[in-house]
Amino acid sequence: MTKARQLFIVFIVGLVFNLHAEPINFLQLRAQYEQTSENWPEPWLEEGVEHSEIGALTEVIFPFENPFTIAKMRLGEALFFDPILSRSGQIACASCHDPDLGWADGRRVSFGHDRQVGQRNAPSIENAALWQSLFWDGRARSLEQQALIPIQAGNEMSLTIYELELKLNSTYQYKQKFKQAFAKEYISAEDVAKALATFQRTIRSRKSDFDFFLLAAKQSDPKRKRVLSQKLTDQALWGMHLFRTKARCINCHSGSLFSDNKFHNIGLTYYKREYEDLGLFNYTGNPADVGKFKTPSLRGVMNTKPWMHNGLFISMAGVINIYNAGGVRILKDENDVFSPETSTLLKPLALTQDEKMALETFLHSITAHPANGPHFSFLSES
Amino acid sequence: MTKARQLFIVFIVGLVFNLHAEPINFLQLRAQYEQTSENWPEPWLEEGVEHSEIGALTEVIFPFENPFTIAKMRLGEALFFDPILSRSGQIACASCHDPDLGWADGRRVSFGHDRQVGQRNAPSIENAALWQSLFWDGRARSLEQQALIPIQAGNEMSLTIYELELKLNSTYQYKQKFKQAFAKEYISAEDVAKALATFQRTIRSRKSDFDFFLLAAKQSDPKRKRVLSQKLTDQALWGMHLFRTKARCINCHSGSLFSDNKFHNIGLTYYKREYEDLGLFNYTGNPADVGKFKTPSLRGVMNTKPWMHNGLFISMAGVINIYNAGGVRILKDENDVFSPETSTLLKPLALTQDEKMALETFLHSITAHPANGPHFSFLSES
Repeated sequence: MTKARQLFIVFIVGLVFNLHAEPINFLQLRAQYEQTSENWPEPWLEEGVEHSEIGALTEVIFPFENPFTIAKMRLGEALFFDPILSRSGQIACASCHDPDLGWADGRRVSFGHDRQVGQRNAPSIENAALWQSLFWDGRARSLEQQALIPIQAGNEMSLTIYELELKLNSTYQYKQKFKQAFAKEYISAEDVAKALATFQRTIRSRKSDFDFFLLAAKQSDPKRKRVLSQKLTDQALWGMHLFRTKARCINCHSGSLFSDNKFHNIGLTYYKREYEDLGLFNYTGNPADVGKFKTPSLRGVMNTKPWMHNGLFISMAGVINIYNAGGVRILKDENDVFSPETSTLLKPLALTQDEKMALETFLHSITAHPANGPHFSFLSES
Repeated sequence: MTKARQLFIVFIVGLVFNLHAEPINFLQLRAQYEQTSENWPEPWLEEGVEHSEIGALTEVIFPFENPFTIAKMRLGEALFFDPILSRSGQIACASCHDPDLGWADGRRVSFGHDRQVGQRNAPSIENAALWQSLFWDGRARSLEQQALIPIQAGNEMSLTIYELELKLNSTYQYKQKFKQAFAKEYISAEDVAKALATFQRTIRSRKSDFDFFLLAAKQSDPKRKRVLSQKLTDQALWGMHLFRTKARCINCHSGSLFSDNKFHNIGLTYYKREYEDLGLFNYTGNPADVGKFKTPSLRGVMNTKPWMHNGLFISMAGVINIYNAGGVRILKDENDVFSPETSTLLKPLALTQDEKMALETFLHSITAHPANGPHFSFLSES
């Protein structure tokens, strides 16, 4: 065979394999992922991205300044569901963070005082303890700091700190409960925040199929290993592999929370248009932060439709299509320092229809039913 | 071969076919269902059940006493989203019937005034025009009659008719709008109801995959026929067949709304227990009606989680399992005339796992995205 002919055949074979994607060896894939995550296939990471593997939820750490007690958690729970924290007496924290709706509100954007519309989609409070910053623009650095912001926001609960303390201090029941939790006579907004934060730190996702699958690696009993491994179907397993490789999700959705706790611009900032939202820039004032929003957690993601900071998508296929296209590409205006730039971590992915479906199946497998309330494991601590 | 030997082989073959269900001939099934519905396979109906075939949505009829006008519809739309209709000024009709949540609220049971908990799951208002009665217990006979009930309910919007009229008549904007719609100087609660009902009659489900599939029967162009037919996958088509046959759903979920507009007891009445809800009996006082609830529509059903009158199920697999078991069987206490009786239309179904999944897939295929608002077809009428 001539050299040219050889090359031609290689070319044709390559073409065929590109058109009719190589069949997946599911047995091999399963064997690879049944090992502990150090032995998983290499993730496809963009240069400079720190590798933080997806995995089981880490333990919750209660801060030194606000240690866990059952009394405080129960007080926080009562406050969370009580509309007393709002001016109208009609809106509770749970109005936008409802356990029935994955601890979010299922709406594109939230409603607050006088049914005023907010600008952003309410994030779930599942695993709130694991965030390094709160809000889509990260402007709160702790749950304690976060808690008092929606209470005071005019289009959310619309109550001043003064009124909050006045209302609670006139309530016999809360006087008793705060005394139990904080051993003080006067109810302060600071302690309200501490109680709410303590309650929220106990809301952890239930174990998902993915979490059960992770346990397979630790089993010596082959039967038990197989049962746990089967918690992920072939399609979900393939989706997980794509998530870490070709679909490049892991560049941002990493770690036990499936979020890098960082801020990125995927091109939905609506710069200089209706619905403009500059995201992180509103908080930092740094032109490089225009249009950046916090990477949301994907644990429980299928419970918290619609998606994105502005609730733009009601279909996960739509979300995946946006990423498949490499995000919404915006041409940076070189004459405008504030003009936003879509993250270079996003690239067109050329996913096939089957690959997109596998990804969505994986997202189902990291979604368990919404957590019901304080996780039982906390009830024994004090 | 001896007779006995022949019989033995027939027995064995029968056994094998029972254990390993006969493979479905999807080509044949599709050919059958690609015809108009008169030619579909016979539905498996219980004796005495009237046959009303599932099909495209029927046209909306506006009642003689409350004809359609654009002004009235737009007024109704404004009222529907306005918390002015509640005592606190915080709760609108849309609080429990939100377009983002399939025109329901996504909660197990609804919250109303002072965040009081209701007893029932908020039904979607999609296709409200097609109901013969409203509420889970059918206690309203028209949308006009229905509209004023949640406004007055103490645990919903908590406003008296007197206060309602007073509030609206003090509003310049509504004075103008009502004058346009009803040519009267004084705003009456009756006209509020008429406007709300007119708006609600315009909320119709979008076309679902099932609706597109139905169009296949009417096509002469074979290519177009095939495209429309493919809107239902094999699995969904099989689910549709099961819905009408082995799974017996069609005994109650029939007609264009997938509801017979009747009342049945599936065994979730919690008689003499916590969460007791006697359903239709509360309205009729007839002991035979204890525990009966209106058959809900299944159009858009996948948008309105959780399900059942009490929002008991957050997983459709759970719902299907209940029906597969023949409903919740309750032994009637013969000494207690009020003791409820589970409907005899329900029987154990012996569905396989694959059949259950096919049914769920069919339910997805009769769910389109929630309708956004007044359907465009009304905007040209007046």
